[in-house]
Amino acid sequence: MDILCLDLEGVLVPEIWQAVARDTGIDALNKTTRDIPVYDELMRMRLAVLARHDLRLPTIQGVIAGLEPLPGAVDFVAWARERFQLVVLSDTFYDFAMPLMAKLGYPVLLCHRLVVEGGRIVDYRLRQADPKRHAVRAFHAMNYRVLAAGDSFNDLGMLEEADLGIFFNAPAGVLAAHPDITSVTGYAELQTALT
Amino acid sequence: MDILCLDLEGVLVPEIWQAVARDTGIDALNKTTRDIPVYDELMRMRLAVLARHDLRLPTIQGVIAGLEPLPGAVDFVAWARERFQLVVLSDTFYDFAMPLMAKLGYPVLLCHRLVVEGGRIVDYRLRQADPKRHAVRAFHAMNYRVLAAGDSFNDLGMLEEADLGIFFNAPAGVLAAHPDITSVTGYAELQTALT
Repeated sequence: MDILCLDLEGVLVPEIWQAVARDTGIDALNKTTRDIPVYDELMRMRLAVLARHDLRLPTIQGVIAGLEPLPGAVDFVAWARERFQLVVLSDTFYDFAMPLMAKLGYPVLLCHRLVVEGGRIVDYRLRQADPKRHAVRAFHAMNYRVLAAGDSFNDLGMLEEADLGIFFNAPAGVLAAHPDITSVTGYAELQTALT
Repeated sequence: MDILCLDLEGVLVPEIWQAVARDTGIDALNKTTRDIPVYDELMRMRLAVLARHDLRLPTIQGVIAGLEPLPGAVDFVAWARERFQLVVLSDTFYDFAMPLMAKLGYPVLLCHRLVVEGGRIVDYRLRQADPKRHAVRAFHAMNYRVLAAGDSFNDLGMLEEADLGIFFNAPAGVLAAHPDITSVTGYAELQTALT
């Protein structure tokens, strides 16, 4: 019995910030870790944009409430839970993701927290630096073999640290930068790669 | 968002070995870590009894297939998953527990493995020594606050290491030996203690 670590956005659910960008028409919020690999740089930009537009947490949560898991994700999660101990490792925030986790049947989610004052998102708290790599290390410290799948630069620590790390639906730029990492497209291919 | 670590048998599902004892009429299998706190001593006794009676894994799995979560456990798990990241820490075996995990909606289960040859349970593999304490340490290493509840001696490492450790429906002998640890009876009291 192995641990399976999955990224959330782009793997099981849509990119949350891009959904907010689409709903609000604020194009700067379309950028992800695929565009700006340094996470803090990306988040500082996002927080500044939210402040400039006075876009508050309840509005963003309203956008997220309308999102659904990616097509096939619910079935894939059910498949994975029968075969692995499933842990979702994400750089999102509990304040955003919990309604989506409900739609996935509440797999364990390890992510971060926002700092919210009067509905305004004023800061964020990373649980720790390089959190996905540290999570895989922690499961290794419990003597588990760890499999992992993600789609972007912020998954590299997890994919490198895991016993088997797989890019899932990763964009060409990410794949080109890391040709050594196995890459699959779609849940059927991921299932084959995991078994 | 905290991690909640729960023991399995006696907390969410019935004691599996006691169910096997009842079904087979083999009284020696009624003993638990409440009776024999040294786990390896308990397991060696169980394996010897299984060999003596030629009681094989498929027969035991048949008994387990007929078990249900404890009354209220499914609702408690649903409540817990909305509020915590839930991890079940158990000294059972994946070979036994997975059908029960299905009935609980597949929360993450960290436990052990049996060594099975031709249906005969010939040995067992602890994932690591003091596994529940090490699991709490691993979540601490990920900068989580950890709450924990269990009912017996093998939960002590987890309850001591956690930021809040609670005895749940523990027998008098266990409570008397550890009067310093908070104790509750029933899921309603556990919910209150956790919030």
